[in-house]
Amino acid sequence: MKRRLRMGMVGGGIGALIGPVHRMAATLDGEAELVAGAFSSDPAKSRATGRELGLDPDRVYDSFKAMARAEAARPAGDRIDFVSIVVPNAGHYPAAVAFLDAGFNVVCDKPLALTLAQAKALKRHVEKSGKVFALTHNYTGYPMVKQARHLARSGKLGTINKVVVEYPQGWMTGFIENPKNAIGLWRMDPKIAGGAGCMGDLGTHAENLVRYITGLEIEDLCADLTRFVPTNGLEDDGNVLVRYKGGARGVLYASQISTGEENPLSVRIYGTRLGIEWRQEDPNYLWVKDPAGVHVRYSKGEANLCKAAREAGRLIWGHPDGFIEAFANLYREAFRAIRAELAGRKIPACDVPGIDDGVVGMAFIETLLASHRSRLKWTRMKG
Amino acid sequence: MKRRLRMGMVGGGIGALIGPVHRMAATLDGEAELVAGAFSSDPAKSRATGRELGLDPDRVYDSFKAMARAEAARPAGDRIDFVSIVVPNAGHYPAAVAFLDAGFNVVCDKPLALTLAQAKALKRHVEKSGKVFALTHNYTGYPMVKQARHLARSGKLGTINKVVVEYPQGWMTGFIENPKNAIGLWRMDPKIAGGAGCMGDLGTHAENLVRYITGLEIEDLCADLTRFVPTNGLEDDGNVLVRYKGGARGVLYASQISTGEENPLSVRIYGTRLGIEWRQEDPNYLWVKDPAGVHVRYSKGEANLCKAAREAGRLIWGHPDGFIEAFANLYREAFRAIRAELAGRKIPACDVPGIDDGVVGMAFIETLLASHRSRLKWTRMKG
Amino acid sequence: MKRRLRMGMVGGGIGALIGPVHRMAATLDGEAELVAGAFSSDPAKSRATGRELGLDPDRVYDSFKAMARAEAARPAGDRIDFVSIVVPNAGHYPAAVAFLDAGFNVVCDKPLALTLAQAKALKRHVEKSGKVFALTHNYTGYPMVKQARHLARSGKLGTINKVVVEYPQGWMTGFIENPKNAIGLWRMDPKIAGGAGCMGDLGTHAENLVRYITGLEIEDLCADLTRFVPTNGLEDDGNVLVRYKGGARGVLYASQISTGEENPLSVRIYGTRLGIEWRQEDPNYLWVKDPAGVHVRYSKGEANLCKAAREAGRLIWGHPDGFIEAFANLYREAFRAIRAELAGRKIPACDVPGIDDGVVGMAFIETLLASHRSRLKWTRMKG
Amino acid sequence: MKRRLRMGMVGGGIGALIGPVHRMAATLDGEAELVAGAFSSDPAKSRATGRELGLDPDRVYDSFKAMARAEAARPAGDRIDFVSIVVPNAGHYPAAVAFLDAGFNVVCDKPLALTLAQAKALKRHVEKSGKVFALTHNYTGYPMVKQARHLARSGKLGTINKVVVEYPQGWMTGFIENPKNAIGLWRMDPKIAGGAGCMGDLGTHAENLVRYITGLEIEDLCADLTRFVPTNGLEDDGNVLVRYKGGARGVLYASQISTGEENPLSVRIYGTRLGIEWRQEDPNYLWVKDPAGVHVRYSKGEANLCKAAREAGRLIWGHPDGFIEAFANLYREAFRAIRAELAGRKIPACDVPGIDDGVVGMAFIETLLASHRSRLKWTRMKG
Repeated sequence: MKRRLRMGMVGGGIGALIGPVHRMAATLDGEAELVAGAFSSDPAKSRATGRELGLDPDRVYDSFKAMARAEAARPAGDRIDFVSIVVPNAGHYPAAVAFLDAGFNVVCDKPLALTLAQAKALKRHVEKSGKVFALTHNYTGYPMVKQARHLARSGKLGTINKVVVEYPQGWMTGFIENPKNAIGLWRMDPKIAGGAGCMGDLGTHAENLVRYITGLEIEDLCADLTRFVPTNGLEDDGNVLVRYKGGARGVLYASQISTGEENPLSVRIYGTRLGIEWRQEDPNYLWVKDPAGVHVRYSKGEANLCKAAREAGRLIWGHPDGFIEAFANLYREAFRAIRAELAGRKIPACDVPGIDDGVVGMAFIETLLASHRSRLKWTRMKG
Repeated sequence: MKRRLRMGMVGGGIGALIGPVHRMAATLDGEAELVAGAFSSDPAKSRATGRELGLDPDRVYDSFKAMARAEAARPAGDRIDFVSIVVPNAGHYPAAVAFLDAGFNVVCDKPLALTLAQAKALKRHVEKSGKVFALTHNYTGYPMVKQARHLARSGKLGTINKVVVEYPQGWMTGFIENPKNAIGLWRMDPKIAGGAGCMGDLGTHAENLVRYITGLEIEDLCADLTRFVPTNGLEDDGNVLVRYKGGARGVLYASQISTGEENPLSVRIYGTRLGIEWRQEDPNYLWVKDPAGVHVRYSKGEANLCKAAREAGRLIWGHPDGFIEAFANLYREAFRAIRAELAGRKIPACDVPGIDDGVVGMAFIETLLASHRSRLKWTRMKG
Repeated sequence: MKRRLRMGMVGGGIGALIGPVHRMAATLDGEAELVAGAFSSDPAKSRATGRELGLDPDRVYDSFKAMARAEAARPAGDRIDFVSIVVPNAGHYPAAVAFLDAGFNVVCDKPLALTLAQAKALKRHVEKSGKVFALTHNYTGYPMVKQARHLARSGKLGTINKVVVEYPQGWMTGFIENPKNAIGLWRMDPKIAGGAGCMGDLGTHAENLVRYITGLEIEDLCADLTRFVPTNGLEDDGNVLVRYKGGARGVLYASQISTGEENPLSVRIYGTRLGIEWRQEDPNYLWVKDPAGVHVRYSKGEANLCKAAREAGRLIWGHPDGFIEAFANLYREAFRAIRAELAGRKIPACDVPGIDDGVVGMAFIETLLASHRSRLKWTRMKG
Repeated sequence: MKRRLRMGMVGGGIGALIGPVHRMAATLDGEAELVAGAFSSDPAKSRATGRELGLDPDRVYDSFKAMARAEAARPAGDRIDFVSIVVPNAGHYPAAVAFLDAGFNVVCDKPLALTLAQAKALKRHVEKSGKVFALTHNYTGYPMVKQARHLARSGKLGTINKVVVEYPQGWMTGFIENPKNAIGLWRMDPKIAGGAGCMGDLGTHAENLVRYITGLEIEDLCADLTRFVPTNGLEDDGNVLVRYKGGARGVLYASQISTGEENPLSVRIYGTRLGIEWRQEDPNYLWVKDPAGVHVRYSKGEANLCKAAREAGRLIWGHPDGFIEAFANLYREAFRAIRAELAGRKIPACDVPGIDDGVVGMAFIETLLASHRSRLKWTRMKG
């Protein structure tokens, strides 16, 4: 039996969207327990959240800095084993640095940082610390994404020539004609969200998903970024042409003004032998298309899937796994790494995005911005 | 902040299918913690499971009887607050009786019992105990099922005239030609599963789902039950014509030999104003069909849903809730009842199936069997 | 090059629903040309239709009897080669008899007749005449239905154990609360439609489709027929349990009060090796489901289909064939038979329903009625 | 009653793909009859095709030039009323010019010509002739495309901000590793196909479809064109960023190496009020998405559709119209124009693409090529 890991959280105060997902995902398998948190930059809200969650008030902090310091001061068998950072983008870097430098393992939401330079700086802290750093590009946690990866990586698709990845949402549409309703949204504020809006929030998921499945790296890209909501400080629609190393071509787009779309991230990958398609809103299926036109639907939970896909499915076929279970799969892998680190063993390769994925994501964003500013030239991917 | 309820479990040993679902569902919201269990009739396996789950060995028991006795002997602030019974059907009654009589709240898997008489006897124990009894007809936990219920109960559908509910699975198909592979499956053994096979396992869910959504009660039915797997002690396919009180007509069928079907429970309900359709394998949508032929897809998480559907959705739209989240919704409601009971308050009406649903389910099974034995006459629903 | 067959038509006057379908279907391949007709029992309307269609006024008749007589009197190289009978049900028998007895080949809409006795009498006329008689159970004309037939007949499905065929429509729903709007609909009038309403119009298609695909013959059935529209002289909803010869079990239902449903005839067939599913509203696909849960979608136009399916597809894959093309496939096969008959050759076996299918359809209807009157006993299929 | 128009055809010899579609589409409503043709540049094949089609041998010609000359020499009441040109791209211009100049109405397949200059020259011939010129961008013929157009043009969508149109096919995939199998395909030969491969064949449909529905005109575009089949003389994959006049942004792509894709042309259009989606492989539905996330499916044949959509549907709801029926809708509109022209009346505005659409299509192709050659700069749409 594994002992329950002690989890801390930065962000995720009452009313937060993604904080509860992290808490449910981290504890779903009984492998962790939340014991400490700095849930808000507003100390009163942080404390109210701690009470709501039933935490020991001594371990509910007014700031992440206080938390990092105080937790580090606790005895080894009592302090948190890792912290989850779930604040808006601008908070990722300082919080991550504080905890890494204080000797803690970190799970961090995406996108990694505000700039590529900041991302690289953070990477240096990770390396210096020797701690685990996991980045929650959660869509990689779905079982059928892992099956897609298996098919791509094992050569079943043949040579990959074409990729189409799209991530349209529509929730900002209403702000186009009623921009006042958007006042105060941090996702529209470059100071908090960083240099990109929908490309940071959604586009980085799209980039990461393709890379996770195929291993393809962007060589050049060319981006058209547009702001439709007048008061948005950032783009809310982005369309990108991609040339991958090795010759594959891609279309990648993300949007927040695609009216009526909820969260239909999807990816289609075409190789010389097979094509595949996966859709996040229908996540328990993977479609495999052969040159004869036959489309095959594989389901989560089937015995014919690869080991990673089988293990990532929590329930038998026909019993839908959802967003939380996929998210929990990232935590499960991160926990493998964290347990090794805590035991003083070498941190094993784990199936969870990490610091390098975050750096690539930031490079992707900065390349998009450069291409856009160039009035749509092919722009070499930064590194 | 709510204190975490202390959960006990009967069944759910290593390798079990539904036990882990109960554990994940019960603890998803941080409202409960597993503290005790009799996980198997094999004491060694029970203990191994307890170790795996990190329980105090003192609270891992060799039998449910020992557990009921020992837990009841613990101080009030320490003993379990409720027990989840997740053993095969034959074990529901004795375990439930033992815990109810020992003063514990009970969450029990379905179908309720082996016979209608046993179900009624259990109901008497529930009533006498004054305790909470919840039955995990888990499909009622999905948000869009609650929205369907809202539409039906609020009159939006008009008068309901026709119901089609189907629950085909295919996993037994392979046993038809290779019956030896089925040896030892308790679901095929009348002593453990009860008088019905697929109608007990699946048909009762179908009956319950229609009743949950519409409130319709079966008046007469007529059933054709068939055993295709030679060594099956029970039917593995059942087709039923239904006449509901008030004049609606229905088709209900369940099957375990519908080759290639995973778990596509679905229900279609046709009123004089609207028709609706819900499918378990695509659970986050509800289809509403109007007389002009227009089909409208509502999604979990939309602001336009009824209160119960909104509250039952754990994530925003486009972020799929799955089987576990739906299951957890039953626990959440059961916890409301259990907290009231523990506090000595009147047990409120909660949105979770209970003992009466279990009695109806057993009456349904016995009516099916009577109709089948009569060579397909209309048979009045037992009560 | 084939000479163009001369087509006559009984029924199909201006405003008719199915008449134009027959005309388009019969002429789609350039194999036939409409040259004569008695388009309505109202001579003025018949003549107006003939003018609209550009026919020679001499060959537009006031009644089918006049037409049969006059066409028979024309020289062999000039008279019609076949007649299509597209009037309401009550008109099928007298018109078919008149043309068969006058020596003409007949294409007739379904259901065949008003009663089983009438159907058998018609069969005697067909046999005596030696002419071609085709019955337009048009859903058998879809390419993917032919592929389903191929899989079933070639043993690919294994032994068929379970069939679910459903044919819900919703167009009568509005009449339930507003029966006055239904006044004058011949489909609700037993004198014109025959003994069954929705089971005659839709149920016979469902029965025929299963038999076409699988060859399964109904041994016993048990039917619940209901009239929801107060002024309907016939049932508008019917649910049937079926036992096929050889042991397969079935559920068959049809409905005209399934609110919001347009025309989703569908069939699912489960064998010991594979399950298949076909849906009329999405007709260019056939779903094949294997015991491992994998679902495979085959499309019309793919090279891997059986010969009959390939030949029945008019366009390459991804270019949808529709209702008219499927209908035209029946005419194409009927024309093979008619050309043989005209040439004095033996009429070959053709892939189009015929008189025997019509007799079975009427037997099916009368068995339904008998079962319903018996208050739902298993009723042996009439023959 | 309308007299049957006399149709001539250039191309469409035995074994041709699109020729039979034109013949079926043109004659589906009984409004036209094929009477003459130059079916192949191989006179023997032309004659064999004429025999197969039952034409008078005097009107089967060895070349389109001979045909134009000879038909023009026939008396007015006997010569063809229009010609359909269905040869590969390079043949469009010379044949169209020959017939226009000889005084005939023309229906021509797409893309219009080999170059923009040629397209403009052809336009001058059209204008000079005063004849009807229809271009078969057939996807505009589907009823639900017309409903989409109605919603867009009537302002129901609000201001259109984003368009995604895609047209992937996979049939060339196999040639990537086996290029020898592609030898002789005219679609890969710039001399016959023109300057673009998949963008000419598929991309022009995509461009036209968006313009037909929305009226949006491309202002600037930026294109990445790739050849994956080594022996292809043209690109087989193309990805395009689009800026429409007025500010809308678009993604347009077409492909012939998207493995396993048959013909899933689709378009998604997002306005400030509604989003819509239409898919060619499922053509009888239009999806309308509102800001609340609700998706509404409208079907062909519903009474609530706009007039153009209703009239373009040949069958009632639930009875699928297919590719041929959509194609026939173009002919039906062209016939309205042709009948006016023949009667000496002003040619009315008709709902069928024409010479201007063809010129735009060629401008689109040349702009794509220019952008690609520029290494992906925004390139102003040529005019």
